[in-house]
Amino acid sequence: MNGVASLSAAHRVAVFGGTHGNELSGIALVGLWLRDGAEIRRRGLEVRPFMANPRAVQERARYIDTDLNRAFTPENLSFQGEDLPYEVKRAQEINQIFGPMGSPDAYDVIFDLHNTTSNMGCTLILESSNDHFNLQMVHYIKHAVAPVTCSVLLNDHPRLHYSTTRSVAKHPIGLEVGPQPQGVLRSNIFESMRLILKHALDFIEHFNGGVEFLPCTVEVYRVVERVDYPRDSNGNISAMVHPDLQDCDWEPLNPGDPMFQMFDGRTVQYKGDCTVYPTFINEAAYYEKQQAFVMTKKETLNANGIKVTKS
Amino acid sequence: MNGVASLSAAHRVAVFGGTHGNELSGIALVGLWLRDGAEIRRRGLEVRPFMANPRAVQERARYIDTDLNRAFTPENLSFQGEDLPYEVKRAQEINQIFGPMGSPDAYDVIFDLHNTTSNMGCTLILESSNDHFNLQMVHYIKHAVAPVTCSVLLNDHPRLHYSTTRSVAKHPIGLEVGPQPQGVLRSNIFESMRLILKHALDFIEHFNGGVEFLPCTVEVYRVVERVDYPRDSNGNISAMVHPDLQDCDWEPLNPGDPMFQMFDGRTVQYKGDCTVYPTFINEAAYYEKQQAFVMTKKETLNANGIKVTKS
Ligand SMILES: [Zn+2]
Ligand SMILES: [Zn+2]
Repeated sequence: MNGVASLSAAHRVAVFGGTHGNELSGIALVGLWLRDGAEIRRRGLEVRPFMANPRAVQERARYIDTDLNRAFTPENLSFQGEDLPYEVKRAQEINQIFGPMGSPDAYDVIFDLHNTTSNMGCTLILESSNDHFNLQMVHYIKHAVAPVTCSVLLNDHPRLHYSTTRSVAKHPIGLEVGPQPQGVLRSNIFESMRLILKHALDFIEHFNGGVEFLPCTVEVYRVVERVDYPRDSNGNISAMVHPDLQDCDWEPLNPGDPMFQMFDGRTVQYKGDCTVYPTFINEAAYYEKQQAFVMTKKETLNANGIKVTKS
Repeated sequence: MNGVASLSAAHRVAVFGGTHGNELSGIALVGLWLRDGAEIRRRGLEVRPFMANPRAVQERARYIDTDLNRAFTPENLSFQGEDLPYEVKRAQEINQIFGPMGSPDAYDVIFDLHNTTSNMGCTLILESSNDHFNLQMVHYIKHAVAPVTCSVLLNDHPRLHYSTTRSVAKHPIGLEVGPQPQGVLRSNIFESMRLILKHALDFIEHFNGGVEFLPCTVEVYRVVERVDYPRDSNGNISAMVHPDLQDCDWEPLNPGDPMFQMFDGRTVQYKGDCTVYPTFINEAAYYEKQQAFVMTKKETLNANGIKVTKS
C-alpha cells in the first residue's frame, strides 16, 4: 500500500444548471450544451447536461415553492401524493433519474453550476473531507487554472450542511462563480465557469484512462458558522455589511475588524477570538436565510493517491 | 427680463422607495425615514417618505402583476373595477395621494429611488428638457457631489419614454444608483443615494428661501435607442454583452467597437455611424424588456435662471 487507492471508473457524469432559476451562467451553459454537446464530450464518458429546475428558470426566480438545493432530504425523497411542493416533486424526479441517492445505480459525478452575488471568484464546494476522488479533482482544477485562484469550500458542518441537488451522486461537487447579480449573464463569469468545467471533465477522462494521481494536500475553507445581519426589535435589518468587509470574501477577518455598518453610522466589530475567513458575503439569496456571510476556517486536507480499478 | 424665471415655491415633496421591490437602497432609506424623518426634515417643506409598492417589497420582487414604473398611463389611471392588476390599483392610489397628475393639487416634487445592476454610478433621470426647476436642481446636485460624477439621463423619447411612478408630480425626478445586485444592500450605494437626496432637499430649501439660481448649462445623455441582445431563431439570447462594453456605462462606443460576444466566441461590433454613450448596460430587469443597453447621445441643455415667486 503506497497510499494510492484503487477506485472504480467514473463513467456517468451530469452537469446541472438552473438548480436556482436566476443564476444565469449555468443556465446558459447547460442550454448551450443541450443544443450541442460537442464541447463536453469526452472519451469513455457519458456527460449529461441537465436543467434542474426548469420552472424556476422560466420564471427567472430562485425557486417556485421551496429551495431545490435544500430539498434532497430522505423525508422529501420518500413523500407520496400529488399535493407536494413543485421542488419536492422535482427532487424525486431527479433522484429517480440520477440516483437513487446512496445506491450503486447513482451517477458517479454531478457538477452543479451556481452563481453568487458575492465576490467569491471561482469556488468549488465539497460536502465531505473523505471523498478522495473529489479532493484529487479539485487539486487538479486548482493547478490547471493557476495563477487564477479557485477556492475550495468544505461544508460538512453537522448543522449548517444542507441537502443539495448534487448529493444524489456518488461524488457531488458544486461550482459557485461570482460576483454576478441574479438575472444577469456576465461574459467573464460565464467563461470562468466554462473553463473550470472543462478542466473537471479533463480530470475525469485522465482518471478513467489510467492516469495515477499521487497523494497531495488541498487547502480548503471549512464552514464553521453563519452570521446574520444586525436586526431591530421588529426583525428588520438595521445594518449593512461594512465597506471594509464587503467584497472581501476569503480574506482574513481578525478580532476587532469592522463587520457591519449601522444605518446611523456606528460600526459593529468582529468580537471572536481567532481569525476567520468570511465568504458568501452579502449574497442576495441568503437574506431570506438570515445570513450576512459564512465564517470559515482555513485547513489543509490530505488526499490519498488514486488510480482507476482495472476492469 | 434677465433670464431669471419666477416659479412657485415647492412645498410638498415626496421621496419614493420600493417602486421596484428588489431595489434595496431606496427601500432601506425610506424605511429608515418612515421610522425617523429628522434627516429629511427641511424648513418650510413637507417631505414625505413613501413605500411605493409594498407588496413587491414584501416579496423582494420587481413587481407583483406588472411594472409599477410603467403603469401611470391615462388609461390605467382611469380604469374602474375590482379585477385590476395590483400595480394598476396601486398607481390609482398613488395618483390620488400625490396627484392628480397634471393638476394644481399634485405634489411639487417626487424623487423616485432606484437601483441598477449596471455600472452607472449616480444617475438623475429627467423626463423633460424644459423643466427648468429640475435642470437647476440637477445642476446644483452635480456641483455638490463633485468630484464624484453624477450623470443626467434625459428620457423624453416619443417611443422609449414610459409612464413613471414619479410622473404624478409637477417635477418628477428619478435617482438610479448602481451597480448593486437585486436583493442586495451595499453600503457604498446606500450612502451615495442618501447624499444625493440630501443635496436635492438642500436645493429645494434654498430655492424656497429665496436664493436665486442663475442661468446655467447642464450636460445630459439623451436616450436615442434601445438595443436588444442577439437572439437565435427561438428567441433565446445567443450572446452576452462584450467584456469591453460590460461596466462601461457612459463611455463612448464608436463605430467598429465590440458590443456583444457570441457563445461561440465571435464578436458583434457596433455598426452605427456615430459615437454613442451606452447606459443601463446588462441591467437585470431589462432582459424581459428585450434590452441589453440604451444608447444615448451627449447634449448640453440651457437652464433658465430661477427664483421663487414672492407670496
Ligand atoms: Zn445557487
Ligand atoms: Zn427600478
